[in-house]
Amino acid sequence: MPGAVWRLGLPWPRKEASLRHDGRAPDALRPLRIIPDFTDNPLGSVLCEMGRTKVLCTVCHENSVPRFLQGTGQGWVTAEYSLLPGSTDTRSQREAARGKQSGRTLEIQRLIGRSLRAVVDQKALGDRTLWVDCDVLQADGGTRTASITGAWVALAIAIERLQLKQNALVDSVGAISVGVVAGDLLLDLDYREDARADVDMNVVMTGQGNFVEVQGTAEQGTYDRDQLIALTDCAASGIAEITRLQQKAVGEARRT
Amino acid sequence: MPGAVWRLGLPWPRKEASLRHDGRAPDALRPLRIIPDFTDNPLGSVLCEMGRTKVLCTVCHENSVPRFLQGTGQGWVTAEYSLLPGSTDTRSQREAARGKQSGRTLEIQRLIGRSLRAVVDQKALGDRTLWVDCDVLQADGGTRTASITGAWVALAIAIERLQLKQNALVDSVGAISVGVVAGDLLLDLDYREDARADVDMNVVMTGQGNFVEVQGTAEQGTYDRDQLIALTDCAASGIAEITRLQQKAVGEARRT
Amino acid sequence: MPGAVWRLGLPWPRKEASLRHDGRAPDALRPLRIIPDFTDNPLGSVLCEMGRTKVLCTVCHENSVPRFLQGTGQGWVTAEYSLLPGSTDTRSQREAARGKQSGRTLEIQRLIGRSLRAVVDQKALGDRTLWVDCDVLQADGGTRTASITGAWVALAIAIERLQLKQNALVDSVGAISVGVVAGDLLLDLDYREDARADVDMNVVMTGQGNFVEVQGTAEQGTYDRDQLIALTDCAASGIAEITRLQQKAVGEARRT
Amino acid sequence: MPGAVWRLGLPWPRKEASLRHDGRAPDALRPLRIIPDFTDNPLGSVLCEMGRTKVLCTVCHENSVPRFLQGTGQGWVTAEYSLLPGSTDTRSQREAARGKQSGRTLEIQRLIGRSLRAVVDQKALGDRTLWVDCDVLQADGGTRTASITGAWVALAIAIERLQLKQNALVDSVGAISVGVVAGDLLLDLDYREDARADVDMNVVMTGQGNFVEVQGTAEQGTYDRDQLIALTDCAASGIAEITRLQQKAVGEARRT
Amino acid sequence: MPGAVWRLGLPWPRKEASLRHDGRAPDALRPLRIIPDFTDNPLGSVLCEMGRTKVLCTVCHENSVPRFLQGTGQGWVTAEYSLLPGSTDTRSQREAARGKQSGRTLEIQRLIGRSLRAVVDQKALGDRTLWVDCDVLQADGGTRTASITGAWVALAIAIERLQLKQNALVDSVGAISVGVVAGDLLLDLDYREDARADVDMNVVMTGQGNFVEVQGTAEQGTYDRDQLIALTDCAASGIAEITRLQQKAVGEARRT
Amino acid sequence: MPGAVWRLGLPWPRKEASLRHDGRAPDALRPLRIIPDFTDNPLGSVLCEMGRTKVLCTVCHENSVPRFLQGTGQGWVTAEYSLLPGSTDTRSQREAARGKQSGRTLEIQRLIGRSLRAVVDQKALGDRTLWVDCDVLQADGGTRTASITGAWVALAIAIERLQLKQNALVDSVGAISVGVVAGDLLLDLDYREDARADVDMNVVMTGQGNFVEVQGTAEQGTYDRDQLIALTDCAASGIAEITRLQQKAVGEARRT
Repeated sequence: MPGAVWRLGLPWPRKEASLRHDGRAPDALRPLRIIPDFTDNPLGSVLCEMGRTKVLCTVCHENSVPRFLQGTGQGWVTAEYSLLPGSTDTRSQREAARGKQSGRTLEIQRLIGRSLRAVVDQKALGDRTLWVDCDVLQADGGTRTASITGAWVALAIAIERLQLKQNALVDSVGAISVGVVAGDLLLDLDYREDARADVDMNVVMTGQGNFVEVQGTAEQGTYDRDQLIALTDCAASGIAEITRLQQKAVGEARRT
Repeated sequence: MPGAVWRLGLPWPRKEASLRHDGRAPDALRPLRIIPDFTDNPLGSVLCEMGRTKVLCTVCHENSVPRFLQGTGQGWVTAEYSLLPGSTDTRSQREAARGKQSGRTLEIQRLIGRSLRAVVDQKALGDRTLWVDCDVLQADGGTRTASITGAWVALAIAIERLQLKQNALVDSVGAISVGVVAGDLLLDLDYREDARADVDMNVVMTGQGNFVEVQGTAEQGTYDRDQLIALTDCAASGIAEITRLQQKAVGEARRT
Repeated sequence: MPGAVWRLGLPWPRKEASLRHDGRAPDALRPLRIIPDFTDNPLGSVLCEMGRTKVLCTVCHENSVPRFLQGTGQGWVTAEYSLLPGSTDTRSQREAARGKQSGRTLEIQRLIGRSLRAVVDQKALGDRTLWVDCDVLQADGGTRTASITGAWVALAIAIERLQLKQNALVDSVGAISVGVVAGDLLLDLDYREDARADVDMNVVMTGQGNFVEVQGTAEQGTYDRDQLIALTDCAASGIAEITRLQQKAVGEARRT
Repeated sequence: MPGAVWRLGLPWPRKEASLRHDGRAPDALRPLRIIPDFTDNPLGSVLCEMGRTKVLCTVCHENSVPRFLQGTGQGWVTAEYSLLPGSTDTRSQREAARGKQSGRTLEIQRLIGRSLRAVVDQKALGDRTLWVDCDVLQADGGTRTASITGAWVALAIAIERLQLKQNALVDSVGAISVGVVAGDLLLDLDYREDARADVDMNVVMTGQGNFVEVQGTAEQGTYDRDQLIALTDCAASGIAEITRLQQKAVGEARRT
Repeated sequence: MPGAVWRLGLPWPRKEASLRHDGRAPDALRPLRIIPDFTDNPLGSVLCEMGRTKVLCTVCHENSVPRFLQGTGQGWVTAEYSLLPGSTDTRSQREAARGKQSGRTLEIQRLIGRSLRAVVDQKALGDRTLWVDCDVLQADGGTRTASITGAWVALAIAIERLQLKQNALVDSVGAISVGVVAGDLLLDLDYREDARADVDMNVVMTGQGNFVEVQGTAEQGTYDRDQLIALTDCAASGIAEITRLQQKAVGEARRT
Repeated sequence: MPGAVWRLGLPWPRKEASLRHDGRAPDALRPLRIIPDFTDNPLGSVLCEMGRTKVLCTVCHENSVPRFLQGTGQGWVTAEYSLLPGSTDTRSQREAARGKQSGRTLEIQRLIGRSLRAVVDQKALGDRTLWVDCDVLQADGGTRTASITGAWVALAIAIERLQLKQNALVDSVGAISVGVVAGDLLLDLDYREDARADVDMNVVMTGQGNFVEVQGTAEQGTYDRDQLIALTDCAASGIAEITRLQQKAVGEARRT
């Protein structure tokens, strides 16, 4: 029963957590909106809005695979990520102008790629590469989790349109952040909360409720075993809701 | 009377130019839509749609100027441009991953910057840099001209919000492409037309109808004096219409 | 009681896990050897051997701080990581020759830096930067965790030698990998095990037994709540042992 | 009749333009000297001097074509450009040391390449690439136009020496700058004039008098329809003279 | 008789050179220790210690050759070099982070490669590349000569293990520095001496006593014909001793 | 008496060396021509022709010094080198386009810089940097030595024009190559000889006949003590002749 430990009133999280600056309950998601077919050129395209965070996720395909897969009959799914310069509060330097991607960018796009590959049957893809691009139009915290959530929908749409002989999509995958801010456990942190968080965790789970990735970091302070469990349980309940919205968006795209 | 030569039935352009593949008349623009405040973080932000071409133009400011202007009391306006990887028909390689911007990108962003600076009073800006970012979400020809057209609106909105003592905006600036395709002079080429063009010209003009930049290229074949005049006249009539829509968009942003 | 769930015979991990290819029990560390003062030039220097994995960890200092900390009175701890080309089974391309660090390298050095900063009081450091370099001389799995483990010892030695007025080291920090291989939960995976792992988790903990970082990845398959708990409990018991050896090594360095 | 509008005494350009700082009439070229076979290793080599501006133009060939032309039977002509560090008034940083070519350099070399390709029959070249290198030994304005003018001569010499079955050179191509300086229309601006120009235009034309490229920029102020026509007419008369000198130089090279 | 001129009491070097700061005679080597099989993954691996200077030399092989040798049946030996950031007195910036190798690094690795190739029969290697990596763990002067000396031992071990049909190793090669410091001719300069040297020379010789490379530099002052001869004679006597130790180390590796 | 050993008929070099492919005697230089003031913008400029090898050497100055000299009152002399793409027999890739300078280029420009600094009194320069650029217009062997020879003349001219209070030029410096080709000792190798050389040595000497740099390399085979002496003696006689021509060129520049 996900979330159980945290809901049972253990000493932590604090029983009477105050409302958040935007009025949300501690375990409430921001409004999530997934707009399929936001652009036409890619095979799949989704605008994923998580509160004020907006990410354009596109999926293009190519009839070849990277060298290390040539001759194996397996396909490949890979992801790239960027913050548009004007997406952040203060302008972010354009990585193409700087001549290299930051460590943060590389780390995020590796995470997105791994998360999607966890639910793809690469054999069923055949000799194809699917390029997933997540470009953040507006950033207000949680851009990596919104990228994964939106990218999966764009990927599902794209794979349907490929009309493969065998289903290549094993499950759905979604992601959310959780954190500890001033002693409270909070779900889906926005930028203002994230900047004050003592613990910041990103959780990626399948539609069936299993973990693909847990990344919990305490740059200030540390966290203990009970907190680890409470954080992941809280994330699990959030992802269950995200999964429903992802499925709905895929359904909408199918009808158009 | 702009356009006169071209309308007077000289041997060229051909009198009975066939309708275009999308049903437009030779001298008709695609539907132009300028959506102000598409995102919130920048000082000014506009989504500029020219037919299927969609460009997000944002303007951020910084309270400093580049080294070559330090101590002069003048401000600076500079622009950067990119094609998002999923914006094009076939995916474009991400320049940040490749480690450098292409010659085409640099050429376009230099053009955007020069065009905007032509209508800005840099002294009135004071010790400020305005960063203009044009990121193409969907590309269907004319991305550089849509970038200039949209960027000017975002810039006008941003400058109003700075509430400077002196007006820093001298005029408006807009841009359009013209070309010769299979012997016909066409205004506002989409990608399909552009790929077949013998002559391709980008024209940037002020709201008052003067040229800021004319760039006419014939990679296949050449063009003569009459064609040069007809092409620029046709562009001038298109930009007059664009100017009206730019002013309307600035007015809308003011009311919100 | 760390490790409890896992030891209590829940259905998973399997009760009768077979011995490992090197004869270790599932929850046994490889021999850990920390050789202080392996080189003389840096303020602190340690060769950290975890089985066949050997990492040279050095700490140098500089009397300045990065721009974002100037004027705050706080110091900085930052880390860099590399695999020497000859350290791996098949030669790894030299990143300096290639002209950039890989995403994997950047991700690892960011992790090392965060882990160390979690136990350092940056105010007590004053206007100093401590550069931690982890260069892998021989790689046999677990290079990032051996780096953290060894780097903390080198850092502790270096900080003692700085003879600061205030103690800058709040706690120790150590790291270990855990994973699921062929259904068995294993502690401290070597390269052969790591290559076959379904789940791969790196855990960073303080000497007091709290988490600094948990990174659990399932590129093949997924893992559930019970497994998450069992994995982190198993890691906790390993890190407790590592902590003892780290303290011993710091003591040795003090005596010389 | 090229130049007509401008010569007919319209209100602009001013009738009584003062002589220029070097004593030239407004529509006079600087002394143009084209020295064929300045170096021996390339297939074609020319030193092109336009007043104090000196550009070494060389053409080398390679028996292969870029990937996008493989299998088409077409050849390729491409150009590269640089300012030698000591060529300018104040030393220019070496781009090879800086690690990248500037936007200005890329823009110019793209222009040179396009201009030359406009007069080459790529089919007649067959599976060959011609590399055109324009290296500026001394810069005093007009380096891009002197590059095009000289490069065409080097190209013509090189193509003759290839002794192709079919003539690959369709026409000649030459270039010149025109501009508006303090209200006067001037041909072939030197650096001192260029630095003060309100409008700066580079015009590339074939020997037959058609446009290949017109690039007119007003970074300060704007220009109108009459000025556009006058500028291009003036350039046309200058290029007619350049064409004669180019043909003479090719003839000389033939005799040696 | 190498060293003769220098020992015969010519006016220079000075007859009564004072002992060196570490008590060595002017023509004495530092203690040289070559530890074979310092790491296991490469085909050959040696830790070469020359006084406080420590270099890890590894040799890996690859069953292919660079493009310029394809189809010739010849193999290739190439070398790379780096200073680990913590190896120097003051930390050296990591070249992989900086994005390029310094001129000094490239110069040294080219020297190492040339020196080794001088004693290798590349035909006997067949279609193989041997990658030699010299990574300096601790730097106290003479890192390039210690690299060559150690690399040859690692190469000899590696080539033996390849069990080629034909012997690919024609001779041994070793290297040493000599210099003029405050008027004295010194062999095997450490960092403190090197920093004060007027003339600095690196000499590479075969086991048979012939020169492979002489690089003598006078950044301060100059040197004359007699000094050139005395310097190279002194180096020759040092290399003779180094050769004996190299052969011993290869013998040790063979026995294990 | 430089060259004595070699002329005295020792067993090597061979007594009856055949004439060279261009008719030169073994110890003859190619025709050396130094044209001062080849370009006007730099403070000093020289075209140095050594047979078919042509190098443009320019010297520019800047009123500042690199960081490591700030506050010392010393000036700096630094050099950069390039092969123009069209200078070589087969076109060389442009390093600015490739994004980095080759190891060979860096090695050569470091050598040029060191050689010039050996004869400059950096204190007399004051807070100035002199940038020496050597750009090879045509390459036929010996480009590095022609660069040093020409660069010194350009430097001498530039320093005279600075009219410093104290003379900053201590001596002249010139360079030449020597080598062993098919058993013959040859002076001033051209490309055809260089490609076949067993030993290749570059020697840099002052006008007074002392060595600044000796770099002798045997990539094929080795050389012995007698050959080392013969090679450097032969180089010394060549440089004596070069010195006379350098002085003459400086005198010519003074008169204009």
